Amino acid sequence: MRVLITGAAGLIGGALRGALTGHELCGLDVRTVDGFDSAVGDISDMGAIRPAFEGVDAVVHLAASPSSSAPWESVIGNNIVGTYNVFEAARQAGVGRVVFASSNHVTGMYERDEPYASIVAGRYEGLEPGGYATIDHRVPIRPDGYYGVSKQYGESLGRYYFEEHGMEFACLRIGSVNRRDSPLVGVRAFATWCSHRDLAQLVQRSLDAEALGFEIFYGVSGNRWRFWDIERARERVGYSPKDDAERYRGS
Amino acid sequence: MRVLITGAAGLIGGALRGALTGHELCGLDVRTVDGFDSAVGDISDMGAIRPAFEGVDAVVHLAASPSSSAPWESVIGNNIVGTYNVFEAARQAGVGRVVFASSNHVTGMYERDEPYASIVAGRYEGLEPGGYATIDHRVPIRPDGYYGVSKQYGESLGRYYFEEHGMEFACLRIGSVNRRDSPLVGVRAFATWCSHRDLAQLVQRSLDAEALGFEIFYGVSGNRWRFWDIERARERVGYSPKDDAERYRGS
Repeated sequence: MRVLITGAAGLIGGALRGALTGHELCGLDVRTVDGFDSAVGDISDMGAIRPAFEGVDAVVHLAASPSSSAPWESVIGNNIVGTYNVFEAARQAGVGRVVFASSNHVTGMYERDEPYASIVAGRYEGLEPGGYATIDHRVPIRPDGYYGVSKQYGESLGRYYFEEHGMEFACLRIGSVNRRDSPLVGVRAFATWCSHRDLAQLVQRSLDAEALGFEIFYGVSGNRWRFWDIERARERVGYSPKDDAERYRGS
Repeated sequence: MRVLITGAAGLIGGALRGALTGHELCGLDVRTVDGFDSAVGDISDMGAIRPAFEGVDAVVHLAASPSSSAPWESVIGNNIVGTYNVFEAARQAGVGRVVFASSNHVTGMYERDEPYASIVAGRYEGLEPGGYATIDHRVPIRPDGYYGVSKQYGESLGRYYFEEHGMEFACLRIGSVNRRDSPLVGVRAFATWCSHRDLAQLVQRSLDAEALGFEIFYGVSGNRWRFWDIERARERVGYSPKDDAERYRGS
């Protein structure tokens, strides 16, 4: 397949460009990407990006204001209008499948409740890893900011495009991905870290699964203290994370 | 309480203006409203509408592109940007409660599945009224258009404003409301009709309930063939519909 990565110049775009296999990759970003077949355009401008979708079979949609605390003024153009433009350009080009970078911030407010509040603060006393309910694709959404609202809107728009137009979607509620590719950036990451290779595996399997339909998966490594569900991704696309933040503890 | 009705000049605005009691009502609309204390402003323009929120205790947010088949270009300004502007202006003015006109179209795609597909087509053979699962606030969302996506986004944004800012919300997934106030507009309405007085009761009780929190209620009359839940609204705010479309059958 020819796979278009929006936001190809970004952090996750960089991690995926070097990791996805078996497909012809191309990109779209507001910046050029050295040594990579990538168009330049802003997703908030439909006319500017539409040509990049010609001949594309699948889209990995990463382009967005990436901060969970992004202000409304940034989110409306980049994440809300931009995601419509990407899905609609994909539909017009006959794209059959979209892997959409949603976010754990769609359900971020659960971290104000126990036991998640303790876990993200590193207070494990009296808790057993896995001895609590995981947050999965079926729980009521509880976005923790405009960014989370915008990502949930993208899931909702994807659901409509799936049911109305038959485009398949994997909406990935991605956890903590960072440039160092390490959970040693803060205590929360021992629960929420997603390594580059685990995320690449989840994207790869979402692209390659024979029948996908519409799915919402959490993108998180196999961390000892994770509280997001990975069973759904395991069942539907065979996701099998290789990393566990716990191995870094004390290192 | 001083209650601001956005979209006061519209169909539902008109039905509520004459029915809500016990509060000082005022309005906001792009049109003037004869004989009613109503400001003129477009909700897609934050600066134009902010003054209307001064001194307001609660908001009934109806203003929107009202068609379930509204194109994206109409939905983005009126429903997506506009709803942000209304919630944010309300927050800045210290408004404590919002009744938001969401829509049954947030879950409209269920009507492609049985038994709902048969019911909306008036094919009742082999079905018992109430002998099937009702669609409630907990089911996965399945919007049937950009309009439904925009209304679900409003629910999501409301959820964030509730958890972050303590503003209470009743999101009403309103059924079929029409100017004739009759279900005799098409066979689907025997299931989906919401009479003006039942809707007014639901809005009134959502405004008056002592503690509301964040709630999603379906706004539908007590129709024999309804397939949307009203138990949640009954439990939380005492909603007790007076009308049933079935009484109109054959009339």
